Amino acid sequence: MDRTYIKDLGQKTGEMVRIDGWVAVRRDQGKMIFFDFRDMTGEVQGVVLPGSGAMDAGKETRNGFVVTVTGIINKRPERNVQADKQNGDIEMQIESIEILSAPQELPFDPDADVHIETLLDYRPFTLRTARNRDIFKVQATIVDEYRNALKRRMFTEFQAPALVGGDAEGGSAVFKLEYFNESQAYLATSPQLYKEIMVGAFERAFTIAKIFRAEKSATTRHVAELTQMDFEMGFIKDHTDVMATLTGVIRDVVARVGQEHADVFARFGTEVPQAPDSFPTFTLREAQEIIKREFGRDVVGEPDMEPEDERQICEYAKKEFGSDFVFITHFPTKKRAFYTYADPENPELSLSFDLLFRGLEINSGSQRIHNYDEMVAKIESRGMDPKKFQFYLQAFKYGMPPHGGCSTGLERITARMLELANVKEASAFPRDMTRIDIRLSTEGEE
Amino acid sequence: MDRTYIKDLGQKTGEMVRIDGWVAVRRDQGKMIFFDFRDMTGEVQGVVLPGSGAMDAGKETRNGFVVTVTGIINKRPERNVQADKQNGDIEMQIESIEILSAPQELPFDPDADVHIETLLDYRPFTLRTARNRDIFKVQATIVDEYRNALKRRMFTEFQAPALVGGDAEGGSAVFKLEYFNESQAYLATSPQLYKEIMVGAFERAFTIAKIFRAEKSATTRHVAELTQMDFEMGFIKDHTDVMATLTGVIRDVVARVGQEHADVFARFGTEVPQAPDSFPTFTLREAQEIIKREFGRDVVGEPDMEPEDERQICEYAKKEFGSDFVFITHFPTKKRAFYTYADPENPELSLSFDLLFRGLEINSGSQRIHNYDEMVAKIESRGMDPKKFQFYLQAFKYGMPPHGGCSTGLERITARMLELANVKEASAFPRDMTRIDIRLSTEGEE
Repeated sequence: MDRTYIKDLGQKTGEMVRIDGWVAVRRDQGKMIFFDFRDMTGEVQGVVLPGSGAMDAGKETRNGFVVTVTGIINKRPERNVQADKQNGDIEMQIESIEILSAPQELPFDPDADVHIETLLDYRPFTLRTARNRDIFKVQATIVDEYRNALKRRMFTEFQAPALVGGDAEGGSAVFKLEYFNESQAYLATSPQLYKEIMVGAFERAFTIAKIFRAEKSATTRHVAELTQMDFEMGFIKDHTDVMATLTGVIRDVVARVGQEHADVFARFGTEVPQAPDSFPTFTLREAQEIIKREFGRDVVGEPDMEPEDERQICEYAKKEFGSDFVFITHFPTKKRAFYTYADPENPELSLSFDLLFRGLEINSGSQRIHNYDEMVAKIESRGMDPKKFQFYLQAFKYGMPPHGGCSTGLERITARMLELANVKEASAFPRDMTRIDIRLSTEGEE
Repeated sequence: MDRTYIKDLGQKTGEMVRIDGWVAVRRDQGKMIFFDFRDMTGEVQGVVLPGSGAMDAGKETRNGFVVTVTGIINKRPERNVQADKQNGDIEMQIESIEILSAPQELPFDPDADVHIETLLDYRPFTLRTARNRDIFKVQATIVDEYRNALKRRMFTEFQAPALVGGDAEGGSAVFKLEYFNESQAYLATSPQLYKEIMVGAFERAFTIAKIFRAEKSATTRHVAELTQMDFEMGFIKDHTDVMATLTGVIRDVVARVGQEHADVFARFGTEVPQAPDSFPTFTLREAQEIIKREFGRDVVGEPDMEPEDERQICEYAKKEFGSDFVFITHFPTKKRAFYTYADPENPELSLSFDLLFRGLEINSGSQRIHNYDEMVAKIESRGMDPKKFQFYLQAFKYGMPPHGGCSTGLERITARMLELANVKEASAFPRDMTRIDIRLSTEGEE
């Protein structure tokens, strides 16, 4: 018998069908056994009635068993209908259960509220929980719609490299590796230089790229391997063109996630974010003055925003402008990467921005320098060696338009979308100082 | 004045417009200067007529200049119409040219046929050529449609990690790196273990993942960093379910690439591949016997296919079955990865396959072992330590359905799609033994 997907069972009442899936819940009532089965399309309730040929197999199964089940789809009596539930009006009367895979005893109840470290210790198991399937379904939609939104805006996708030859930006938080013939390579901390090169070919380019940060930070916001959604566009008048494009992309993402996953927002007790036509925008200085005025904390003149600043300006923007998103612009030029374009009217400040979402920076961008001589001078002024940038600099040597772009962290936007407390929850396989799949100290002891 | 994209100029005859772009070609005829301008949407011819205010700027420009141009769109006289060319019926009468970026002298003519190493030395420049824009536009379509085809088949996308804690499969061709606290990490050679884990959550999962191969191979088929398009699916009867899904995906990709890029195939002097409803399929043994019979080379009994075998069986399949794709199945179990499912009827052979495309293996797949005890025994029988697989093994401990999957190399499928001689041409930024952007020996000398 061919398999029927669980989502299609409602059209099969009165028929004998076969389903494949997992035992999500099993309630043995002695004479009868009730099951919830799940496959990738949903869940359905099944029952082994007294005298059924499936009774022996039914007694053997437990939660987590992988099974092929045949049975008849019956309408439930009116009093048992659960109208708000998938397949709430039907029940499968089980004729046979074939056990495809019998798991060992499960480590804990799938719905148990466990500590983040336990959650990650048992990741292959905990990824199967309804909560985690929700998180990563939403994440798949976010990345999909981010790409679609950019394609609709004439961006071309490319594959940025993860292996790079130098620690271009001169930061110390970079992973080094042994390359061929005793040479050294590094893991990319950003696809920045490559997406600028791609502007020369395609004018508008984007990449979904892995980046790696060797920062010794053990906060809820840091992981060592991240997925960045980066785009870069040519022929802009200034950074506001990039911000306008990003606003459109984010609005498209929020709309699609809201439409496809309304049920997830309900289960997570949060709401689809508010993303108005244009997001409230403050210069860093303005934001600091708002924080002073509204919250009584004086951070005016600080060169960057601290987590508490991000939370407060977001709280303000939500209250005053009904927006879960806020742009902060004009960060000090010296605090941003070398390629950032200085404001011609005040070169101390840069044509840069961060996008904050529900209290957290999820995106950083700017207009970039496009003139070759200016770029070389800027690299030198930072005490770096233009020779190390010879490959990148070709893009400028052979003619670059005014351009800019930005980078959105996939884990961060996912975490804030569902208001997860820890960004690691939004990474299927997070790596940090103490963990690559398993805890590193544990591994060392073996 | 707002920018008009070059593709839309045909609707603007008689109007004054502004375009932004690059000087693709410049022909100075003394009294008049002719230009081809390009932006991301196409090309258009422009002319500076005697007495135009744009003459001085026009004299200053050369190929590769980045410009903003204003002018009037005129219909060309009938005798000058080039019907087969974009904008072949119009010409822009240039009123002004603003130079946004003046490049240094270009290293060589963009259409010059240069050696692959020179092509890569000047990658930021050569990516701008029509040939390379074609290659990477086609690549973007391939990866996009591969994803779409899987999403239509109910696969969920996830982000596989690039950093891994162990060299799981025990091969030696792995890059090592210094991780936190003097621990070691490795770069993934495959997302295999993670996509199997994801089958436990989503039943069908896919990832577009970077993988890294430290093989000391300097052939036209090897690069050190690759983009793999991997999928894995649960509840299969055997490897043929995976092959059927892959066939559908490949047919979707070929159809879309053929539809969107017919012009590219024409420019590359090749044809849209032939991808029939089902691809010719031979066991390894059958393929070897065909090679002996048809080409007189006796490779019968060899445990794997050599490049010449791949070329000949593809030549045969094209001639006899009108297919550019061929499946080879049943490779010896001991030659495939530990997780490969042995044929129950003959455990010496495995339920595995390779997909060959125009003479090259582009995909490898199989049914996998799904039983925990069997998997542990198999790991031990290969002389590996199950403890090192403790994270992965959780997926099996807690119940895995029969499953299988496969992995397609993005660079390889792109290269064969356009019949490029060298796979490196299909990587925007290829890394190999001698190069990360620039040649490594050169860097050492500095």
